[in-house]
Amino acid sequence: MDKIKIDSSAAFLYPMPMVLVGSVVENKANFMAVGWVSRVNLKPPLIAVSLGPHYTNKGIDENKEFSINIPNISLMERTDYCGLVSGSKTDKSEVFDLFYGELKKAPLIKECPICISCILYNAVKLPFNTLYIGEPKEVFTEDKYMTDKQLDIT
Amino acid sequence: MDKIKIDSSAAFLYPMPMVLVGSVVENKANFMAVGWVSRVNLKPPLIAVSLGPHYTNKGIDENKEFSINIPNISLMERTDYCGLVSGSKTDKSEVFDLFYGELKKAPLIKECPICISCILYNAVKLPFNTLYIGEPKEVFTEDKYMTDKQLDIT
Repeated sequence: MDKIKIDSSAAFLYPMPMVLVGSVVENKANFMAVGWVSRVNLKPPLIAVSLGPHYTNKGIDENKEFSINIPNISLMERTDYCGLVSGSKTDKSEVFDLFYGELKKAPLIKECPICISCILYNAVKLPFNTLYIGEPKEVFTEDKYMTDKQLDIT
Repeated sequence: MDKIKIDSSAAFLYPMPMVLVGSVVENKANFMAVGWVSRVNLKPPLIAVSLGPHYTNKGIDENKEFSINIPNISLMERTDYCGLVSGSKTDKSEVFDLFYGELKKAPLIKECPICISCILYNAVKLPFNTLYIGEPKEVFTEDKYMTDKQLDIT
């Protein structure tokens, strides 16, 4: 079992979840696809998303609110689209049907099985990315995704 | 499509990768299973692991070095074991075959297809967990996991 050294940029982790991070920029909802996301604290259940320098960031920085929407396979094409085009050039507010909970600057996606509105807890500046750590304010799902009053993760 | 609100502690994300985080505590290698892990920066390719108050942390805090080892399915039982027992009570240094790269306080696991030695870049204290952000120093794999000089993630 001979080990070989490879370039450290290969240090990706799989499987990656894929979420749609939403914010309100210039009064419009905007979303981007993010694969670098993880739960980071037990109580409160903080979640971190790592964003490069994107249009979405502006809304989070200004409003201290954002959303995390977990798509299912049927949304893959539209999720991809949000990962490929920038909100600075394209209005993405009508790609999905939206709703809002208590946080009016955290746009939630009706089509997503799980929607989480977050209050910004901390923003950690890294050399290229910013790690936005959010505290969930509300989590929305649908009855059909629940089994015995628990979220059925399958 | 009626949305229902559920408890925010349900805000887990799937799929989760599972890694073995290693450090040297009191001159012995120690490992713990961690599911809250994500790449967080493009260049350098920083990786964050979120650890509760565990024995492993002591080694990271002292040495500013740690390792991330990505197990395959054949290691599931031993990975589980590392998640269930604490290094404070049980010597876990002989659960795996170890090797070291340049970082002598970042114990690497021979049985893992991918092993990453990290220099501590930043430790972000959260209410319960600590988010250890590491900069990969060396990434090790084996020829059999490479296809066309790229890591074959399948």
